[in-house]
Amino acid sequence: MTTIGVVDTTFARFDMGRAAVDEIQQNVSVRIKRITVPGVKDLPVASKKLIEEEGCDLVIALGMPGAQDQDKVCAHEASQGIIQAQLMTNTHILEVFVHEDEARDDRELMELMDKRSREHALNAIKLMFKPEQLVKEAGTGQRQGFEDVGSLRA
Amino acid sequence: MTTIGVVDTTFARFDMGRAAVDEIQQNVSVRIKRITVPGVKDLPVASKKLIEEEGCDLVIALGMPGAQDQDKVCAHEASQGIIQAQLMTNTHILEVFVHEDEARDDRELMELMDKRSREHALNAIKLMFKPEQLVKEAGTGQRQGFEDVGSLRA
Amino acid sequence: MTTIGVVDTTFARFDMGRAAVDEIQQNVSVRIKRITVPGVKDLPVASKKLIEEEGCDLVIALGMPGAQDQDKVCAHEASQGIIQAQLMTNTHILEVFVHEDEARDDRELMELMDKRSREHALNAIKLMFKPEQLVKEAGTGQRQGFEDVGSLRA
Amino acid sequence: MTTIGVVDTTFARFDMGRAAVDEIQQNVSVRIKRITVPGVKDLPVASKKLIEEEGCDLVIALGMPGAQDQDKVCAHEASQGIIQAQLMTNTHILEVFVHEDEARDDRELMELMDKRSREHALNAIKLMFKPEQLVKEAGTGQRQGFEDVGSLRA
Amino acid sequence: MTTIGVVDTTFARFDMGRAAVDEIQQNVSVRIKRITVPGVKDLPVASKKLIEEEGCDLVIALGMPGAQDQDKVCAHEASQGIIQAQLMTNTHILEVFVHEDEARDDRELMELMDKRSREHALNAIKLMFKPEQLVKEAGTGQRQGFEDVGSLRA
Repeated sequence: MTTIGVVDTTFARFDMGRAAVDEIQQNVSVRIKRITVPGVKDLPVASKKLIEEEGCDLVIALGMPGAQDQDKVCAHEASQGIIQAQLMTNTHILEVFVHEDEARDDRELMELMDKRSREHALNAIKLMFKPEQLVKEAGTGQRQGFEDVGSLRA
Repeated sequence: MTTIGVVDTTFARFDMGRAAVDEIQQNVSVRIKRITVPGVKDLPVASKKLIEEEGCDLVIALGMPGAQDQDKVCAHEASQGIIQAQLMTNTHILEVFVHEDEARDDRELMELMDKRSREHALNAIKLMFKPEQLVKEAGTGQRQGFEDVGSLRA
Repeated sequence: MTTIGVVDTTFARFDMGRAAVDEIQQNVSVRIKRITVPGVKDLPVASKKLIEEEGCDLVIALGMPGAQDQDKVCAHEASQGIIQAQLMTNTHILEVFVHEDEARDDRELMELMDKRSREHALNAIKLMFKPEQLVKEAGTGQRQGFEDVGSLRA
Repeated sequence: MTTIGVVDTTFARFDMGRAAVDEIQQNVSVRIKRITVPGVKDLPVASKKLIEEEGCDLVIALGMPGAQDQDKVCAHEASQGIIQAQLMTNTHILEVFVHEDEARDDRELMELMDKRSREHALNAIKLMFKPEQLVKEAGTGQRQGFEDVGSLRA
Repeated sequence: MTTIGVVDTTFARFDMGRAAVDEIQQNVSVRIKRITVPGVKDLPVASKKLIEEEGCDLVIALGMPGAQDQDKVCAHEASQGIIQAQLMTNTHILEVFVHEDEARDDRELMELMDKRSREHALNAIKLMFKPEQLVKEAGTGQRQGFEDVGSLRA
């Protein structure tokens, strides 16, 4: 049975992992393995362990980098590690980051974190079960958490 | 039979993958394997899988990074991953990125995305079938999508 | 018996390693292997050696990057290396960095270095022995060394 | 017989590869394998293939990064890849980059590209055949393409 | 017999390698393998070759990055490669970089390069032969080449 890993952080201010798990369960029947780590820099190895030690076929790695310069550097390092972990395992790890300064207030931030987590959960499902659907959406300006911007028009 | 992989994104606002596939098919007879992923950070592992699991001899990885600072960071991470994937497979992955702020308006952006995708498809063909042609073009100031700047003159 | 590695630096201005060791010993009974290296850029290989040559099941890597631009670059390189070491060993290495400019004076800096070292030691224990506790804390805005910021509220 | 690989780009505005090949041939008798790729980001894998698939004992990788911010990022990514390729093969790849904005006009740029390519070709020869000569030059402020700055004096 | 590798550059303006070798020889009896490469970006592979092909148990990699922005980028790339080389070999490579703009004039720069090279040579000796001494110095604010800043006081 297909297994999807979900890993999020205690640093984030919204339970992104729960949102992702909920969205997956509403749409497909798969085994889900969920774990939580302290911060985004712990996501790469946690994702790789989910793949290599827990048999996950795809992982969703969720985090909320803070708004300060140092937080941006941390997010960059985490992203590099997540890409590296994918290359070492030949397995997709969908990075779902919401930067704390992407929203204007707490309510907007919470909604963005919920929506982006859910929309990337749907991307995970497409990558696993409906790759041809993604080809149909090529170049259509999809955005996760915000309104899609659509294709360019001449 | 030679196989060329083509991978693009749903984030882009123009179907770059289609342009690349079309250009290849107009010029050579090869097997093409096309897939689409959500964003540029998903390109490295997708390209590596095309090489190692689908037998591609070369991959063209196309994307349109956004205009904001965070988008630039994402593009940088994707580029690093694409280079790493090449080193792990000893296989060329031609990165075809058009930054959203390279053009002044939607029409120009669309044309740039179309042209650069096609010109790199031709580069892919040269790398595969006419490497001696590339040596002839060494130091000639080739630009993909814009007019070539040519060699320096004394 | 579970072994936790602790590695810190002679560059730091507070004995972070001792704080981490003390906190671990107050809470669990494990074997601890402690070493010290000159600076943060020596932490990645030291951590990897603790895992692969000393049998550590998890490593806590502690450092105090300086306040100048060049120090920030060093910290970034060290962080990248620590993530890479984790991916090569499938083992968590908890990075505990306190930047010298995070505090307003020496006393505050010392307290921050002590507290963050101890709180990450507790995270190490949770990762090893109580992973389900971390899932309960998902999205609760935990901060190490400072007061937690808590979950977002609608 | 010793084989030196030479790889340059069609993006550059001067045939750096030819200059390097010419300098090598004027000084030593070795087998030379020359190829050309589109841009600097294609240099890492091309260099690694020259080493692993064409038996090169050392590679000279030449490129001319453009003057814009994005070009600087590309050069950085290429450099990281070239270092990585060396580590994966235990083989020197001499990076010879001339940034387009290092010179004041086209003539100066052309001369710089020619001189730096040739001086690094001589470095390649020393690395291969006269390593003791390099030790003699340790700390002497060598510069490739510009006048040497020399050792510090008390 | 223990072997320490020493690698420096022709780009530097002071013979850092000689200073390191001299300091080692004044303090311990080990085999020393010294080589020189053109610039700091050649240090990672040279260090790795010293470890894997010349049997070095530890390497000291010395360089003097220039004062311009591009030089800072080169130093960053070299540092990343040196960390990577350590992770690939489970062997310490002590990076000894003196940035050309760390000193106010040539005399000060020369003295700094000499002192830092020697103090890191002593660190190398401690890492190899007296690791327990480093633990005693944990958190004591050691600085190489400048006066130590000492521990924080409450």
